[in-house]
Amino acid sequence: MDAFTRLADALRCLPGVGPKSAQRMVYHLLRHQRQRGLQLAACLHDAMQNVHHCKRCHNYTEEELCSLCQNTSRDPNLLCVVENPADVMAIEQSSAFSGTYFVLMGKISPLDGLGPEDIGLPRLYDRVLSEGIQEIILALSPSMEGQTTVYFIRELFNGHAIKISQLAHGIPSGGELEFLDGNTIGSALRNRATVHA
Amino acid sequence: MDAFTRLADALRCLPGVGPKSAQRMVYHLLRHQRQRGLQLAACLHDAMQNVHHCKRCHNYTEEELCSLCQNTSRDPNLLCVVENPADVMAIEQSSAFSGTYFVLMGKISPLDGLGPEDIGLPRLYDRVLSEGIQEIILALSPSMEGQTTVYFIRELFNGHAIKISQLAHGIPSGGELEFLDGNTIGSALRNRATVHA
Repeated sequence: MDAFTRLADALRCLPGVGPKSAQRMVYHLLRHQRQRGLQLAACLHDAMQNVHHCKRCHNYTEEELCSLCQNTSRDPNLLCVVENPADVMAIEQSSAFSGTYFVLMGKISPLDGLGPEDIGLPRLYDRVLSEGIQEIILALSPSMEGQTTVYFIRELFNGHAIKISQLAHGIPSGGELEFLDGNTIGSALRNRATVHA
Repeated sequence: MDAFTRLADALRCLPGVGPKSAQRMVYHLLRHQRQRGLQLAACLHDAMQNVHHCKRCHNYTEEELCSLCQNTSRDPNLLCVVENPADVMAIEQSSAFSGTYFVLMGKISPLDGLGPEDIGLPRLYDRVLSEGIQEIILALSPSMEGQTTVYFIRELFNGHAIKISQLAHGIPSGGELEFLDGNTIGSALRNRATVHA
């Protein structure tokens, strides 16, 4: 197999890249982007070798603690629990949260054989107690597995004086009623806010 | 900048990869495909460093001659001229051609400052005469630039006893008349084949 075909095959480990787009990528790199292709190879090698999980929040980092855990100006009393590193990024982009995070790297899913230990709930428990965290905000998906995970975390802190909250469900900003599903509209109605009493 | 962000940025040199899909690729690689990510890094480095143009046909290869030029069972009298390496691959997949190729790596385009020398027409001329090629098949796109290139190549061999042909224009296999453009239908009508005289 030649270098061209080997590269086209290797590119298919990227999500959403099929044989045709892999081929197109190789032609593009060879023709216009050799230098950036070499850079990409170096970044890939570096990330695959050196990125691991933050000791404290389990997010991705190449250091012992991720940049958010190293940031001493974050509120240490507020802990946001999310499923994935991508969720941390989305919440950070909202600039609406200044506490710290705990990344489960999954959710409880008996069908996939994922139990409380697999998503690090014992580590979450130890951290919340040892750091004296006052509120846990659960930012989990409204799926069956997400809600099972919510249930387990609530059980975990049963008997502890720790506030546990959950992201509000309702109409997303810019959402048009006619295109929203019934569950979302139902949540929005139940959680309606009084604007004039 | 951390290793994660550096990799997400570097992935954007791939065509069709924006910030969101780059992020998704990094998460996917870190989580599920570290080994294949390392392999991809090695293949990328190898291809960017070692792939160059075949001395004879100008297609991509990491050797002096590409595998098609090394293949002695190909017909040396027939030469197919194409714009890009991807065209060679498409024609090879049709299994309908057994001659050799010449890859222009572009087409004549005065607007982009590309003239006959930039697409290697002098090398094409030398090769056709020195190898005693009998027929040149022009497999160029039916665009303005493609047809300008056809014109230049015809002029080049003016006065030489070399047959020059061009791919047939007409209805593609599986094409439905109602969805084809007028130019294609016009070509198909002009080039109609007699089925009963």
